Amino acid sequence: MKVIGKIGKGVKKIKEDDLEELKYNLLLDYISKKVDISEGKRAVEDIIRVIYRHQPISTKKIAQKTKLPLPIVAKVRTILEREKLLKRCEKGAELTEKGLKFAENVLKLKYKKSLTCKTCKGRGIVLDEFFEEILNKVKIWSKKRPVVDTSLDQSFATPETSTYRAALMYERGDLEGKNILFVGDDDLTSLPTALTNMAENIVVVDIDERILKLIEKFAEKENVNIKTVKYDLRNPLPEELKEKFDVISTDPPYTVDGLKLFLSRGIEGLGNEGVAYLSYSHKPIEEWLLIQKAITDMGFVISELIPNFNYYEGSEIIANTTFISRLIGKDLKVNIGDINKIYTGLVKPVIRYYKCLKCGKIYKVGDKIKKVEDLVCECGSKKFKMIKREKIKNQNE
Amino acid sequence: MKVIGKIGKGVKKIKEDDLEELKYNLLLDYISKKVDISEGKRAVEDIIRVIYRHQPISTKKIAQKTKLPLPIVAKVRTILEREKLLKRCEKGAELTEKGLKFAENVLKLKYKKSLTCKTCKGRGIVLDEFFEEILNKVKIWSKKRPVVDTSLDQSFATPETSTYRAALMYERGDLEGKNILFVGDDDLTSLPTALTNMAENIVVVDIDERILKLIEKFAEKENVNIKTVKYDLRNPLPEELKEKFDVISTDPPYTVDGLKLFLSRGIEGLGNEGVAYLSYSHKPIEEWLLIQKAITDMGFVISELIPNFNYYEGSEIIANTTFISRLIGKDLKVNIGDINKIYTGLVKPVIRYYKCLKCGKIYKVGDKIKKVEDLVCECGSKKFKMIKREKIKNQNE
Repeated sequence: MKVIGKIGKGVKKIKEDDLEELKYNLLLDYISKKVDISEGKRAVEDIIRVIYRHQPISTKKIAQKTKLPLPIVAKVRTILEREKLLKRCEKGAELTEKGLKFAENVLKLKYKKSLTCKTCKGRGIVLDEFFEEILNKVKIWSKKRPVVDTSLDQSFATPETSTYRAALMYERGDLEGKNILFVGDDDLTSLPTALTNMAENIVVVDIDERILKLIEKFAEKENVNIKTVKYDLRNPLPEELKEKFDVISTDPPYTVDGLKLFLSRGIEGLGNEGVAYLSYSHKPIEEWLLIQKAITDMGFVISELIPNFNYYEGSEIIANTTFISRLIGKDLKVNIGDINKIYTGLVKPVIRYYKCLKCGKIYKVGDKIKKVEDLVCECGSKKFKMIKREKIKNQNE
Repeated sequence: MKVIGKIGKGVKKIKEDDLEELKYNLLLDYISKKVDISEGKRAVEDIIRVIYRHQPISTKKIAQKTKLPLPIVAKVRTILEREKLLKRCEKGAELTEKGLKFAENVLKLKYKKSLTCKTCKGRGIVLDEFFEEILNKVKIWSKKRPVVDTSLDQSFATPETSTYRAALMYERGDLEGKNILFVGDDDLTSLPTALTNMAENIVVVDIDERILKLIEKFAEKENVNIKTVKYDLRNPLPEELKEKFDVISTDPPYTVDGLKLFLSRGIEGLGNEGVAYLSYSHKPIEEWLLIQKAITDMGFVISELIPNFNYYEGSEIIANTTFISRLIGKDLKVNIGDINKIYTGLVKPVIRYYKCLKCGKIYKVGDKIKKVEDLVCECGSKKFKMIKREKIKNQNE
């Protein structure tokens, strides 16, 4: 919110109300600076607005609705509590009287209804009976998934998400009779896609053999046709897959180089032109600008972009939700960046602290022990909860 | 659709079925080439799919659903009829038996349901009672609009469209307490926006005095606050409006230079950062790539893009529907192109032939007579119907 006088109402007189407003605006500035992220002020405004409209509301729900990372939301929430604008109640965050006054007098909020379509949850498309049946099957198969490998930036989309993706592809005419390549498929989107029996060919490439084996087992039991290829994307796409596809689908690591690499291998599969379904995290503007530039340079136009389309099991750091975009490409050009920086763990190394759920012992992960999946407690338990996360300073920082 | 053998099934044997498929594929190629637009093959596929799913269907509806210009759809339709794939029935286009075979055996279409959400028509948001009431008021005011001035690329969005735009702004947190600038407003989006009584300030700049007068009358009668400024966007934004706004909204002329100019004046209003609602026509990839590049260069990210969000009264050339996108900008940079090429009439000059609805006399518009609004028939009538449209060859072409 820019603080200006009423336009066209002449010189602004300082009245008591204005002083009150000024005081609160300084508070907004103060909180925004404390948060220390690029969209500080907007982030704080968004969080307060979401609480105002939906209170009481959990931190996770705030993160989903604002599309901000959970740690940021938690941080803002703590500051707002300290400033007595917010209180915790049983069901989540609620504005205090002071907070309400702040929301209504400074942010000028007044209306609380949500206009997001309840039928489609804002996705714009719905599942009919045919796709609902597919979803039910996908739910069963999703339970058989291996544990996530965080070193590969894995995080599993919900069965609803993968089925909605297949439904979107159908609706846009990118499924029937098409050759479809999944560039990485830890989300198992190939499952609902194959269950439609609409595609001409479905191929999944992935580095994780556990995922591929599950897909193969699925294809056998459900009697559908999916070809799997174990393949490290850091190498060029196998010759027999080049220029063979009409459509690609990918949910790459959420780094600029990850996106470039995954889309580029997709382009090798598409050849000169085709359609790409790209799922990606809601990023700060600076980073999203780099990505938009990379996408444009490759020759893709963003023909559609639906926020909050994808939801994931567990992955709280990314607010649990990402967007899907439908890209259409012509005169496509491969654009590979630094293949050593594709995973977030390599770009922004972090140490995570995990607590054993059985005996309470705390372990450090990310340094000597690379991933939580490798962790076994002295007491024999393999169940842990992440309790803290801290960045490792790069030498360049 | 790429024609490849089943992947992994070894050498392809040519069977009778394959020959049939090959023959039909040659037909698809042949038709696509005849259409002579950049996405020839995809356009033909899209049109056939839309007819397959929704037949019988009018040409206008096909254009809306495929987002293709009406003249292209009409051309493809004629070719498909000539090839006996399509027939006309009372309610619109229908596939013949040959057409159905083509759709199912070559394009491999098999399912006919539409998964677009019927509640929100794919927009992802709905109007509640409060906004429905606003819509009713907007409908009444919209009837008072002047006739479109095609030389300014005017074409009026429906009252539903402008109200949905205001609803979207509310839902995304870009309305309450915000200073909003409409960079051109022949769509009258400022009306529903003002009727919410949520914005801090609303300013409309437009070159067309008729539009501004209507808005002023509306503001007076409905007792809402809208400031209007008559202003030719080819000049810099008036000093008192610079860096005063949080949000801008624009539906510029559908040329690259038109978009650059309108967004740039918006940026002058926003200053360093802010949100822009951009409505724009679904364009061929080459042109949309230029636009995506221009948007990125200005410092805007596309945080959301909803196809078929906007509908217009009459304007059939653009298939009657355009998308809306929510852009978020940071470190914004003005990027003005050739201000003499902002209107489509200047970029792609056309001659239109109009027939008097009373006496039948035919007039040429676009040469000596610049626009149909200036046309009066010898018989005294001012009502005309466009019957033909042809491009004027540029000297550079």
